[in-house]
Amino acid sequence: MKHNSYFEGKVQSLAVGTTDGPATVGVIEPGKYSFGTDCVEHMHIVAGTIKAKLPGGDWQTFAQGQFFIVPANVKFEVEAAGDVAYLCYYKR
Amino acid sequence: MKHNSYFEGKVQSLAVGTTDGPATVGVIEPGKYSFGTDCVEHMHIVAGTIKAKLPGGDWQTFAQGQFFIVPANVKFEVEAAGDVAYLCYYKR
Repeated sequence: MKHNSYFEGKVQSLAVGTTDGPATVGVIEPGKYSFGTDCVEHMHIVAGTIKAKLPGGDWQTFAQGQFFIVPANVKFEVEAAGDVAYLCYYKR
Repeated sequence: MKHNSYFEGKVQSLAVGTTDGPATVGVIEPGKYSFGTDCVEHMHIVAGTIKAKLPGGDWQTFAQGQFFIVPANVKFEVEAAGDVAYLCYYKR
């Protein structure tokens, strides 16, 4: 199983195959991060609350049970005040 | 962030603090496993389908969005035919 660690271990994820395609489950510790996509990503919040700023958009808040879709080949920002658990689907 | 690896890496998890207490998100690769609890655990299936056998019970199947509760200080069995992502709350 692939284990990924980013931002000095403050964001970590585990690869999981699903019937909806490849995904990761992960945890984001408190902080502000910039991510880049190489495909469309469906980001589902599993625990906690996150703020996200997609290209051309304003900051929006997403709580447990909500999701947002990130286009391919963009950068986006997230900010977490507490730990956040997520499930991210990669739509290649 | 604590990263746990069990069963030669076939089960891995990441610690996450939540408003419902300490938890882990993790992935279970296909196989059959025996786990032990030292507190009550609430096991939520985030992706995939798992079979679980709790003490004194029969095998039951739990799919994405479902959960089961495991008593403290017991052993229980799980079996996964495909990858399973979970969120497990520890009720201490």
